[in-house]
Amino acid sequence: MYELHFGVPMANAVLNTLNTRLDVRMLARILGHSEAKVFFVDTEFLEMAEQAVQQLSKKPLIVHIEDKAFQARAGRPVHPEYEDLLRRGDSKFPICWPADEWEAISINYTSGTTAHPKGVVYHHRGAYINALVSALDWQMPQGPVFLWTLPMFHCNGWLFPWTIAAQSGTNVCLRAVTPKAVFDAIAQHRVTHLCGAPVVLNMIYSAHEREKKPLPHAVHILTGGAPPPASVLLRIESLGFSVDHGYGLTESYGPATSCIWKPEWDSLPSEERASLKARQGVGHVGLVDVDVLDPHTMTPVPRDGQTMGEVMMKGNCLMKGYLKEPQLTEEAFRGGWFHTGDLGVMHPDNYIALKDRSKDIIISGGENISSIEVESVLFRHPHVLEAAVVARPDEFWGETPCAYVTLNDPSFVDRVTEKDIIEFCRNNLPKYMIPKTVVFRDLPKTVTGKVQKNVLREHAKKLGSLRPPTSKL
Amino acid sequence: MYELHFGVPMANAVLNTLNTRLDVRMLARILGHSEAKVFFVDTEFLEMAEQAVQQLSKKPLIVHIEDKAFQARAGRPVHPEYEDLLRRGDSKFPICWPADEWEAISINYTSGTTAHPKGVVYHHRGAYINALVSALDWQMPQGPVFLWTLPMFHCNGWLFPWTIAAQSGTNVCLRAVTPKAVFDAIAQHRVTHLCGAPVVLNMIYSAHEREKKPLPHAVHILTGGAPPPASVLLRIESLGFSVDHGYGLTESYGPATSCIWKPEWDSLPSEERASLKARQGVGHVGLVDVDVLDPHTMTPVPRDGQTMGEVMMKGNCLMKGYLKEPQLTEEAFRGGWFHTGDLGVMHPDNYIALKDRSKDIIISGGENISSIEVESVLFRHPHVLEAAVVARPDEFWGETPCAYVTLNDPSFVDRVTEKDIIEFCRNNLPKYMIPKTVVFRDLPKTVTGKVQKNVLREHAKKLGSLRPPTSKL
Repeated sequence: MYELHFGVPMANAVLNTLNTRLDVRMLARILGHSEAKVFFVDTEFLEMAEQAVQQLSKKPLIVHIEDKAFQARAGRPVHPEYEDLLRRGDSKFPICWPADEWEAISINYTSGTTAHPKGVVYHHRGAYINALVSALDWQMPQGPVFLWTLPMFHCNGWLFPWTIAAQSGTNVCLRAVTPKAVFDAIAQHRVTHLCGAPVVLNMIYSAHEREKKPLPHAVHILTGGAPPPASVLLRIESLGFSVDHGYGLTESYGPATSCIWKPEWDSLPSEERASLKARQGVGHVGLVDVDVLDPHTMTPVPRDGQTMGEVMMKGNCLMKGYLKEPQLTEEAFRGGWFHTGDLGVMHPDNYIALKDRSKDIIISGGENISSIEVESVLFRHPHVLEAAVVARPDEFWGETPCAYVTLNDPSFVDRVTEKDIIEFCRNNLPKYMIPKTVVFRDLPKTVTGKVQKNVLREHAKKLGSLRPPTSKL
Repeated sequence: MYELHFGVPMANAVLNTLNTRLDVRMLARILGHSEAKVFFVDTEFLEMAEQAVQQLSKKPLIVHIEDKAFQARAGRPVHPEYEDLLRRGDSKFPICWPADEWEAISINYTSGTTAHPKGVVYHHRGAYINALVSALDWQMPQGPVFLWTLPMFHCNGWLFPWTIAAQSGTNVCLRAVTPKAVFDAIAQHRVTHLCGAPVVLNMIYSAHEREKKPLPHAVHILTGGAPPPASVLLRIESLGFSVDHGYGLTESYGPATSCIWKPEWDSLPSEERASLKARQGVGHVGLVDVDVLDPHTMTPVPRDGQTMGEVMMKGNCLMKGYLKEPQLTEEAFRGGWFHTGDLGVMHPDNYIALKDRSKDIIISGGENISSIEVESVLFRHPHVLEAAVVARPDEFWGETPCAYVTLNDPSFVDRVTEKDIIEFCRNNLPKYMIPKTVVFRDLPKTVTGKVQKNVLREHAKKLGSLRPPTSKL
């Protein structure tokens, strides 16, 4: 996938990295929607890929990236093999530069707030600027050794494939992200930088003592993708890691703000430092502006750290738009600002702090889960009348989906169990989107008949974490 | 001048920083050619500015930046005063963004290789990209303390006014650059970064022992503007400074390449390290390409460190063009590459090394001196028949102008002296451009009648340095 971040754009094609946690149905939907022409697939995912392609009328060519670790599935002769293709390639093939820098370089599908995954299109210009600004914002020196704990299919790995190349760095890739693999890579490859959602920080911290190794040198972690609880920051820093915190969305090519550290904070008590670092911070220099606006008046909220508004952004490092969704695109940029859907406040020092994620999104292990997407599956269950899915707090995943379900016949209560519902979802959703909790009850409604999700969220919050932190991902 | 790097572009005007070493005639020429509308002048230079403006038919408004250190000239009520203007300004004045990023942000006049100074026009886009890339290339962290030993009128201070702002840094300005002021500023303001031509490094090294202070922390120097002799690099590093080396021209917004250090060089003997560091290096990521090409075939020279070619560049971080000189502009970019006029070789590791500056330029104390410009003054002397000016090596200035003169009547030899010629130049040229040596002789010519400057250069080289290094600038 790293190589394809260069080869695909250099062929003037558009890169569409796919989440390896997607199920066949979603894979097929995204391949079809994006009109993929070539589908590069690692042996581990070959079967799923073949199933997805079978569902398509216009079938992309599968190119098999063979991995001997998956013997059983390796070596199928039906698909062209990646390394073999490279060997037969023309080393003098000229780079096909884009005719226009606003041309697409990649698509990143996000579940977002609507039922259908949206194809967020990145342009060359934004990718170029943002890749450079990422190095500046994180103060990354030349020659970093970067460990890929962040999936490269999330916002093109926050653009780090290109940043690391620009900084003449080394990429260390892992087949599976485990605490042991992380500590081993740090010791063996002298890793200096890695990224990850707070759940990755949790995972590293929760390693068995025998897997932990003292850090032989400074290791910088950039966290984002979900607001990091101060407790998580404190824990991971206690291991010697140096943590920076950024905030952004798929639409902003990953981090758009970062909590730039002020030297005067060094002397504060550690709890206070962690809670300052948990703020989302200030926009990077690749953006014209990042602000918290009253969405009705489109004017900035007072800088009081209290008045809520919507976080909005302006600048070149924002998506070209949603693929084949001109109306959604226009709506996202209405009033000349990109609307993040996230609610926050502006502190007197001009640092942004999020107060609530866009209400419908559940963030589990760094993955955005659309409640509407999950609900749409629940609604397909033969005995479900109504369903509403909200986030339940989770010590390890951050959040997990919690489903509130009303059955279409009260007498079914004894026949339809939590396990049944979860089983049903398993056949229709990627694993990470399956509700971990199902509560049978009537749904609270507003006078206009809308489900009061805030009431359900309060309820789910009181349920507490499903289980204590563990190191298993 | 620092403030005006922001205020002027924010008013959608074009910044034209003027070299404080120019004489009245040149000032007037540049003000007229650029059609300056407002002329901000520090008290120290007010008289010269007034004289220059008097020579113009369209007179710009002088705004006086009052400095009490120059009591005698301070407080003239005839010009609006800068701080007073600011006080009367409208703090709600909206920023006038450029309608197009390719619009001019500044002009930098260079004497270059032709008799008339050329107005090199910078665009917003190039300035933005280059300002950010400078921080990356130099690995500048956030919050640098930057000492202005580099004049802000050279390529807009290599864009550092904007880089330092982007990196939330502190600017330390000096009225006069002396070794004592440099060491004092490092100690007092905790300076972390400074820039300068090799002559500035020489000056710092040549400080009196009582002026030198041990460095209290890491201080990074970026040198450029002329190839730094390895001996100069060795000396300044012996004081504890950490030196980086970049190469560029006014047309490339300052440094376009830098000699990115490779860790494997750390263990080499110091002389070898210095000579590696004296190479011009690799292009920055803001450019599409920097290469050494055969100017006839426009193909890259072999990567053998021996074959000479012309250094050429491609990309956004190059000038918009020469003001009112479309033909010169077209010529500079012929074949799709910017022609630097500098000769160099490409080493097998793809590092560029200059072998010769464009033949006509004399680089004295970091200033480019056009020999043609000096010659044109010499030609105006009533007794001069022919004149050719070349560089004479100088231990302190790097080079000084050396004039070869033929008198229009051999019998004048007793009447016209070296001192007369120098005196004549003093009335017609900025001080730094005045020849320090005058040799009376017939000029060697080619069969087609062109002066063989290479012969004169050899001669001047044998003359050796006019004087040993001193700390006086």
